[in-house]
Amino acid sequence: MAAEASSIRFGILGCADIARKLSRAITLAPNAELYAVASRSIEKAKAFASSNGFPPHAKIYGSYESLLDDPEIDAVYLPLPTSLHLRWAVLAAQKKKHILIEKPVALNASEFDAILQACESSGVQIMDGTMWMHHPRTAAMRDFLSDSDLFGQLKSIHATFTFAANPDFLNNDIRVKPDLDALGALGDAGWYCVRSVLWTANYELPKTVVALRGAILNDAGVILACGASLHWEDGKVATFHCSFLSNLTMDVTAIGTKGTLHVNDFVIPFQEHEAYFSAATKSGFSELVTGWVPQPSKHVITVDLPQEVRMVREFSNLVGAIKKGSKPDTKWPTLSRKTQLVLDAVKASVDKGFEPVEVGY
Amino acid sequence: MAAEASSIRFGILGCADIARKLSRAITLAPNAELYAVASRSIEKAKAFASSNGFPPHAKIYGSYESLLDDPEIDAVYLPLPTSLHLRWAVLAAQKKKHILIEKPVALNASEFDAILQACESSGVQIMDGTMWMHHPRTAAMRDFLSDSDLFGQLKSIHATFTFAANPDFLNNDIRVKPDLDALGALGDAGWYCVRSVLWTANYELPKTVVALRGAILNDAGVILACGASLHWEDGKVATFHCSFLSNLTMDVTAIGTKGTLHVNDFVIPFQEHEAYFSAATKSGFSELVTGWVPQPSKHVITVDLPQEVRMVREFSNLVGAIKKGSKPDTKWPTLSRKTQLVLDAVKASVDKGFEPVEVGY
Repeated sequence: MAAEASSIRFGILGCADIARKLSRAITLAPNAELYAVASRSIEKAKAFASSNGFPPHAKIYGSYESLLDDPEIDAVYLPLPTSLHLRWAVLAAQKKKHILIEKPVALNASEFDAILQACESSGVQIMDGTMWMHHPRTAAMRDFLSDSDLFGQLKSIHATFTFAANPDFLNNDIRVKPDLDALGALGDAGWYCVRSVLWTANYELPKTVVALRGAILNDAGVILACGASLHWEDGKVATFHCSFLSNLTMDVTAIGTKGTLHVNDFVIPFQEHEAYFSAATKSGFSELVTGWVPQPSKHVITVDLPQEVRMVREFSNLVGAIKKGSKPDTKWPTLSRKTQLVLDAVKASVDKGFEPVEVGY
Repeated sequence: MAAEASSIRFGILGCADIARKLSRAITLAPNAELYAVASRSIEKAKAFASSNGFPPHAKIYGSYESLLDDPEIDAVYLPLPTSLHLRWAVLAAQKKKHILIEKPVALNASEFDAILQACESSGVQIMDGTMWMHHPRTAAMRDFLSDSDLFGQLKSIHATFTFAANPDFLNNDIRVKPDLDALGALGDAGWYCVRSVLWTANYELPKTVVALRGAILNDAGVILACGASLHWEDGKVATFHCSFLSNLTMDVTAIGTKGTLHVNDFVIPFQEHEAYFSAATKSGFSELVTGWVPQPSKHVITVDLPQEVRMVREFSNLVGAIKKGSKPDTKWPTLSRKTQLVLDAVKASVDKGFEPVEVGY
């Protein structure tokens, strides 16, 4: 797609696998442009650019610093290991680059606060890379959850994100290394679970978190599987389970006084061109309890642009507005921070032997 | 359906609502016969018999004792409030009646052990009324879970059974009364959750149970909503949530190293004539993680006889075999007892302020 005159110029910091998907998304977004890529190895950066649809005039950098010094670049996509987020996000902000940052946004909320501080000082936008938030299905599910007649008051949530990592991943991936992605499965799959729980609860933070016993850690102490229950003052309860050790599963179930929502592919929809969820309202039984009346219904949403393209478009819209004088949006970084606060509490509960932990603020 | 010569003659103790469904099931089962009903009010028993397809020659009793004294009756269906199970199940066994008993089977495992003792002394069969165990879908799901190539090793389970009780139920139903069904939502909806978890785990008892914080009790101390996590020594983990305060929801999700099972109507299938479940195996992503390959598949099972009819048929087969000299089956009472043991542990954990409780044996 031809970039518009007002397209936001993206530089990509690092050649992570996920950056391939984002490169395609930037290419497909109507208001974004693949402009540069940096790797510590210029050869790797060149190879990445040539195999991921970068235009011929794209800039190739052999260091992150040099990309950040390019004044033509509006925004960076930052898929580096989490332990590097603080350093590179802060520097990017100082260099006046808007930041699309992968999850988990930091090793903990206080690191993220330092990043937020740098963004605020420089007046740059930050948004995390939680793609499913931008899927049109997510908005349709929100409509259902917000309907007091169809869904009622939220009572419980259950979220799951597991996948079966192969032996190479379990030995070598950055997500099992304490010096790279120290939060392991909690920071990766668990991030999505926690975000989905917060999303369902309309971003109201739980008061207390209790990690479930039996969290599985590798020899280096990195979480490979864990779960938690989350508790709100009004009695709402959520549970989640995340793991690198089980078959790919991505569930969110939300139950209200009047309705039930099921989605089984919340992070990555089964198919790109359409997605569905199941909604039930005032479910009851037939005479003699031999069936359900009414039965849940399936809601199919057609997708105009893939969720990651919509994410890039939304981010680029915000950046474009800032370039015209608007202030950075605060909704997205607030969601990132709340998610990180809950992750921190779950991690603390695991570390404390599954004791209840109050969620920070 | 005309009763066969070898049909098992049933007497029904009490006119509970669920007894209407069981009366139909006994009528439809090829080897069972509706023979008698007892209520403390003979008028109520008469009305029940005439509106639930009892044959004209059916016996109507104005007390449970007199029904139990009828030598023509082979078996009783016992849907009385849980607090009455010990007394009436023991007396039924002493009167040599085989027993189909509603869940929860007793107020606790030691009461159930007294019932089992009486059954053993009299050589009578006991089976609980967990209908979904007898659905052909349950067998099909077992095939999937047992397949080491398709499902692999079980890692986690989540079960939910909630329904939105109306104000009359919440004020007056036996399931909210401490002197009748003292286990409340845990004994009712929670029974099914716990059974489904045990079923998924091939009846291996968890070692430890931790009730989730935020259990909701009524003024009389009866549980209206609660949940728990269950933990096995091999690292398997299960969570469940049961409630009288949320929209009707009946989920079981089982995740193995290679496969995932979803069923959203496990207790009462959406429709009587067919039922389905979703199975996923070796789920992965397409190139660039834009969809799932393969996607989960839907398995539809056609139903020859409703699950409760199959339950009555199975029970009657066992009784028929005993009448021909076989010993009572031990599988079914063992499942009842294991379910009760886990309920007891959850209840104890709630009572102890959500401390971990070891499951009895």
